[in-house]
Order: sequence, then structure tokens, then C-alpha cells
Amino acid sequence: MTIKDVHLYLRQSERIALIAHIQPDGDTIGSCLALADILKAEGKSVDLYCQDNVPEALKFLQDSDQFLHCTGNEDAYDLAIAVDCSDKERMGTCSSVFDAGRHSINIDHHISNTMYAELNLVDTNAAATGEIIYALAKSLNKQISRNAAEALYAAISTDTGSFCFSSTTSRSYRIAADLLDCGIDAERITTLLYKSNRIERIRLLGRALNSLSLYENGKVALMIITREDLSASGALDSETENLVNYAKDIMGVELGILLKEAADGSIKASFRSKGNIDVSILAGRFNGGGHKAASGASIKMEMGKVKESILAAVHEMLKECR
Amino acid sequence: MTIKDVHLYLRQSERIALIAHIQPDGDTIGSCLALADILKAEGKSVDLYCQDNVPEALKFLQDSDQFLHCTGNEDAYDLAIAVDCSDKERMGTCSSVFDAGRHSINIDHHISNTMYAELNLVDTNAAATGEIIYALAKSLNKQISRNAAEALYAAISTDTGSFCFSSTTSRSYRIAADLLDCGIDAERITTLLYKSNRIERIRLLGRALNSLSLYENGKVALMIITREDLSASGALDSETENLVNYAKDIMGVELGILLKEAADGSIKASFRSKGNIDVSILAGRFNGGGHKAASGASIKMEMGKVKESILAAVHEMLKECR
Repeated sequence: MTIKDVHLYLRQSERIALIAHIQPDGDTIGSCLALADILKAEGKSVDLYCQDNVPEALKFLQDSDQFLHCTGNEDAYDLAIAVDCSDKERMGTCSSVFDAGRHSINIDHHISNTMYAELNLVDTNAAATGEIIYALAKSLNKQISRNAAEALYAAISTDTGSFCFSSTTSRSYRIAADLLDCGIDAERITTLLYKSNRIERIRLLGRALNSLSLYENGKVALMIITREDLSASGALDSETENLVNYAKDIMGVELGILLKEAADGSIKASFRSKGNIDVSILAGRFNGGGHKAASGASIKMEMGKVKESILAAVHEMLKECR
Repeated sequence: MTIKDVHLYLRQSERIALIAHIQPDGDTIGSCLALADILKAEGKSVDLYCQDNVPEALKFLQDSDQFLHCTGNEDAYDLAIAVDCSDKERMGTCSSVFDAGRHSINIDHHISNTMYAELNLVDTNAAATGEIIYALAKSLNKQISRNAAEALYAAISTDTGSFCFSSTTSRSYRIAADLLDCGIDAERITTLLYKSNRIERIRLLGRALNSLSLYENGKVALMIITREDLSASGALDSETENLVNYAKDIMGVELGILLKEAADGSIKASFRSKGNIDVSILAGRFNGGGHKAASGASIKMEMGKVKESILAAVHEMLKECR
């Protein structure tokens, strides 16, 4: 259960598979790439696996094009390491590689981790799995390469909202300081991660903002994105991600709502709270789910009715809060 | 010229004035507030001065309502300290307090600092004056209070673009780690600093994005804000700040331009470059000025003509680059 146990497993293994989670984010991709870099420096043969494609914004990371999909015909590896996966299902089709490994390790920071491997290196105090990979690298007494430092910075930055979420600790900042000392360019990485919007997404943002309305004495902000907004702007469905924050981040607003017409005609509702309203309850009323601060639901009604029902539910919730 | 010399001056002074610069930002306000907190803990009597009002986004900082304007009738202080002022003019009307002080110190990090005080504590390697105040606090062997830590975090965060600009060093991150250990809530501070937009500003953003156009094969993005946009959205003139970055941060764009109709009918042009184009040259062609990456000009022509002239100048510059 400690890093020393991991050393033992690594020493006994030549061929190692690293497995990222489905719908990969910066932490799973960055952590995999950094760990691969570190293990290769130890003379290991390393393959990277991910069921889904690496997101555009992470493709600047060295070797991010080296992730393999699973064919189901992979040889058994000496060691399979799941990276940032809270349970086996998070590996999707690549859990077959994990299952076939002669030995297995689970490196993760999620509190919901199910301890599914032979060796579980789970640190729920870490703001990102990248922090655990950093500790592992340090324990091996290896110089962290510039590429590995860049991958770890991306991993920790994305999982901490650029070192701002409440999960961020002084350890996160101290690791970032050490990574900067490895010669990375934090401004370049941040620009590539967060400040590279396609023009189509910015045009969609403009249209979404035009639909912005306030309710409940300015405590609730609601935006709408229709299929026409998507086609007129040329934006992808995936490019609506995080747009709901423009509603939430308005002064005085407690609850930001985005209603998006999905391709199948249903309405995808996203709820974001500044903290006083538990939006998982709101999502639950529409058979959705999520967390206290971020949740969502998919609703099979026409837009006008969805808006009306949600605003009525919000009105009831706010009355109860008083 | 060292922190030890500052100790000597502090030891000899009872009544101390701290002076922020005109059009104050997070670094000058946060640094003043932190230094005041530290000096009061040393038993000093401290007054804060600033010619202009503290910006809304910084009013959450403890004692930010304690800044005095200058009447010209202030008593002479034992010691006057200019904070984050590269020259005496940056103090505006409050330079009278500085001049009347029996002794004077200049604490700053700008490379253009003119060394105008008796004692000049200028560290051009610091990403923010807040980093110098932090070093001063540590040298006094005092525990940094939560309020002072919050003010220093705000100072360093605002001057480093939330720990991202190329000026950010590992020292910046290590100081942030220490400040987190003082018990501050980085997420709350970041939300208050950067994620609290008035609805009027967001409506203005929507209107500005509607005017977005690309030129020069997508290398140049231009937005326009008219007086009508301002009055229809209800936004203040000051709330156009940083909106130009929405143009610059588009994939493939090298140069972001915002043209704003000013109250006097002239056009205020803002230029932001990702680095390849030196926008100080562009601004210079219109009698403006600034830096390589950020510059501006005020042009007395009607909007259509300004746009035409700027795009022509940009076209020439890009031709020369090839």
C-alpha cells in the first residue's frame, strides 16, 4: 500500500501497461504520460491504453499520440497499472488489459476508489493523481524530465481548476514550484489548456449569452442553446462544456442553469451552484444526478416546458431554504 | 538597499504612511494591506493612502475601506513608503504625503523603477511587489496573519494572471504554498477576484462577441463595442477591460483587437498579441503605446475609418513578417 511496495512490483516487471480512464481528462492523460516517461527512464517497456481519444486540448503533451485502443487481443503484461480510475469500469474496454496483467496496481486519488487491484496506491488527500505520480518519481530518485514535468503540471492544473479549487493544498503549489524548476513554461501550458477556443465555440458563447435571463431576484441565471445555435455557430456538441459557468459566475447569482437541445430532441440541463443550493437534489427531481455544486439531467420534453418545470422546482427549493 | 536597512528605518519610526499607486490594482492594494497588518503587529501606527478608489473586486480584502485620499494638509509622517510605484508620479496627488515624510522607502518590482526614495527596496526578479512584502514579513520573524496572507495571495495572483504569466517563478508558487498554510481559502479569493461579473458586463460581452470577425486567414480577430452596446447592456466603460482577450484567445489568432467608442466620440483601440506580432509598433502608428504583447491607442476618427486603417496597417505588418 506504500510507494516502497510499488518499487518492488516495478523491479519485477519488464513490460508494463498504463491504463487511463474513459472520457479522459488532464489528470489521467498527464499522469499516464509522466509515469510512462519515468518508467522508460528505468529501462521498462511501457504501453499506454485509453478506450477514448485524447481531447484536443491535451494533444500538445509529448507522446499523447501514443495511446492505444484495446483490440481484446493484447498480450498479457507483467504489470498493469490503472491511473486515476476509481473503479474497474472507469477503464471501459481497456479493463481487459488490466485483467490480463500478471500483477496489477491502482494509482488514484478519488475517495470513491474501490481498491480493485493487487496493490492500491490511493491517496485521497492528493488534489490530483499527478501529485501521487510526482511522489513516486521523487521516491525513485530520478530527475524529472521536462516532458514529464509538463505532463504533471497539466495533470494537477486541470484537476485543481488551475490551482484554485478547494481541493488545492500547499502541497499542490510546492509540487508546481518544483515542476517550474524543471524548466517548464507554465504560461504556454495554461494557454494551450484553457485559452485556445475554436472561433465556433466563441460564436456559440455569444449566442448563449444573448439568451441569458435572471430569475428569483437575480439569484438564478439561465441560458439556452438550441440546435440552431449549434448549427449557426458551427460549434460541436462537446463545446458547450463549461459554458454554464458564465451564468453561475455572475455577481449575486447562486445557481447557473444551461438548457441545451440535444441531437435526439431531449433537453440536457446543467446546474452549477456557488454552494448554498444543493443542485444534486434539483437534478434528482428530473431523474438526473451529480454533486452538490455540479449536476445535470436529460429531460424528454420540449424546451419551453423544461424551462418552466425547472424554474418552478427552483422556486420551491428557494422557498424551503428561507 | 536590503531588507536589513528597512528594519533600521522601521525601528526608528512610529507613524508610517503607506502609499498605493493611482488606478490601483491587486498588487498595490494587497501589498499595502499586508504591510499595514505586519507593521501594526510591530506596534506601529499606520495610515493608508491612495489617490483613486479601491476597485470593486478588491473590496473583500480586510481594511480595504481604510485607504485615505489626500487633502494636502496631512501631518508629516516619520516614514513614508511607496508600494508598487515605479516612479513618484505613480502616487498621483498622494506624492505630497511621500514628499513630506521625514524618511522614505520605495518598495517595488518594476524594471522601470527610478529609485526615487532614500531607501529603494526594488527586486525586479519578483513577479509582484507582494513577493517582496512576503520576504519582509518573514525577515521580521512574525507569523503572517490570515488577513495579511489573503492580501498577499491577491497581490501575487493578480500580478501573475493567477500564477500563469511568464513572470511567475517557482518562488511565486512556494510563497502561495506558505500563504495557503496560513489558512486562506484560495478558491474563495479566486472567485471574488476573477469570477464575479456584473450581469451588465456579461451582456456587454455577448454583444461584443456578436461583432467578432476574423481577418488575415484567421490570424486577426476584431471586436467592436459601440456607445449603444454600452448603454443597452448597462455596462460601465471600465467593464470593457480584458474583453479583448476573448478575441486573442481564439485558436489560430495571433492578434486580438477591440475597438471601443469612447464617451468623447474617439475610438479606443486595444491590441493583444500572442507573441509573434509586436503590437507596440502597431499602437505607435496611431500615436499610442504599450508593450510587445499589449498596447493601445486613442484615435479621433469614425469607427469605420479606424477599422479600415488598422486592418490596413496590420496587413502591412504581416506582409513584412513573411
